[in-house]
Amino acid sequence: MKKLVLLRHGESTWNKENRFTGWTDVDLTEKGTEEAIKAGNLLKEKGFVFEKAYTSYLKRAIKTLNIVLDRMDLDWIAVEKTWRLNEKHYGALQGLNKGETAEKYGEEQVKIWRRSYDIAPPALREDDPRNPRLDIRYMGIQGEHLPLTEALKDTVERSLPYWKEVIAPSLQHFGQILVVAHGNSLRGIIKYLKNISDEEIVTLNLPTAVPYVFEFDDELNLQQDYFLGDPEEIRKMMEAVANQGKKK
Amino acid sequence: MKKLVLLRHGESTWNKENRFTGWTDVDLTEKGTEEAIKAGNLLKEKGFVFEKAYTSYLKRAIKTLNIVLDRMDLDWIAVEKTWRLNEKHYGALQGLNKGETAEKYGEEQVKIWRRSYDIAPPALREDDPRNPRLDIRYMGIQGEHLPLTEALKDTVERSLPYWKEVIAPSLQHFGQILVVAHGNSLRGIIKYLKNISDEEIVTLNLPTAVPYVFEFDDELNLQQDYFLGDPEEIRKMMEAVANQGKKK
Repeated sequence: MKKLVLLRHGESTWNKENRFTGWTDVDLTEKGTEEAIKAGNLLKEKGFVFEKAYTSYLKRAIKTLNIVLDRMDLDWIAVEKTWRLNEKHYGALQGLNKGETAEKYGEEQVKIWRRSYDIAPPALREDDPRNPRLDIRYMGIQGEHLPLTEALKDTVERSLPYWKEVIAPSLQHFGQILVVAHGNSLRGIIKYLKNISDEEIVTLNLPTAVPYVFEFDDELNLQQDYFLGDPEEIRKMMEAVANQGKKK
Repeated sequence: MKKLVLLRHGESTWNKENRFTGWTDVDLTEKGTEEAIKAGNLLKEKGFVFEKAYTSYLKRAIKTLNIVLDRMDLDWIAVEKTWRLNEKHYGALQGLNKGETAEKYGEEQVKIWRRSYDIAPPALREDDPRNPRLDIRYMGIQGEHLPLTEALKDTVERSLPYWKEVIAPSLQHFGQILVVAHGNSLRGIIKYLKNISDEEIVTLNLPTAVPYVFEFDDELNLQQDYFLGDPEEIRKMMEAVANQGKKK
């Protein structure tokens, strides 16, 4: 049996401040660090032994991964980082408070920007200092791939090739793989693995730092998927994520 | 100009307890964490921007690297881990206190085990649970490469191919590379780069977490090398390392 574990990073400073983060490279909060420690302890306790790990270019995911691996005494395994697992780019909304944005534009508009499958938030201007083309970490990537904003559809379209070309073959080769990324890049993978519709995927709210386990047979046919941890606690966490776009 | 920075990990729990560590996977102390933070801040302040990093399979090096990269906002760069940069294997001495070992076997004998170029400490038995062949992290490596003890000569011989085949070509490709490893695996690289004799290399005592900078021209001819930091403080740290094998 093959096992894939998807993990959304622990709470970040902008999760806490309820701001749109996207590609902004904010740090974990103390609570986020503790969530990562808890996830690592739980995965170790359940007997997981990952052979390779994947993460994004953003430190809230990388640091969550580092903490998890350290708790599992797996610091030494190979880690591959990619911009394709980055969070959805939130365009000109990046930095704005979700509640305040709802007061200004209405909850409905914010819900569309956060949760419609194919409508993107307003784009960054080309000369905005937040344009990824001006960031050294994206220098090696062809400019036409780099977004100024993204709908979930765009995030799915740039994360899925990485699943198909890199992670899935790696899971064929190894037995257990860990992917630490973001709410929306993980939605893309989950949508594909579980064959979820465009309409339904937007209602899936991943809680932070709760391991989501996918079990496959040797031909990578999905057998079952489940969260690790207390179901009631997880339900509450998912609800809290869903409510972030409401007025304050 | 090309820049290579070699960094010995911060203080580990067994550095602090003055025990032979070798391949034992001990953690950083609080002081070691602070040394790593200081090194990262210093490298950032001096304007270094690494494009790739290399480290060993041992968490005291990996965690030092993670901390340094985080201080530099370079969490996202590619990191390659290899057993070839591991510390010298200390055989059956691993776990023993250096001072007590000196009292038992004499300072001269300990000095030979620690500092002779080609005499190795007593080997682990094949059935010792510390035999690397029994450790999952070394499963992918051909057994004949895995040591039960090492003289510095052996450490140099297994770390140098990694310098020649992996790190040097990478430095040709990129401009700035960081290597975080161990006293003896770094000695191997330094011996080669500075053409130091077998007799002389054993007297080089690298302080923990002090960045050692090597500057090359585009053909990788060494132009100059220097430590970053206060020279007097560094001299004292090197002396302290040299004195670890003395009786208590």
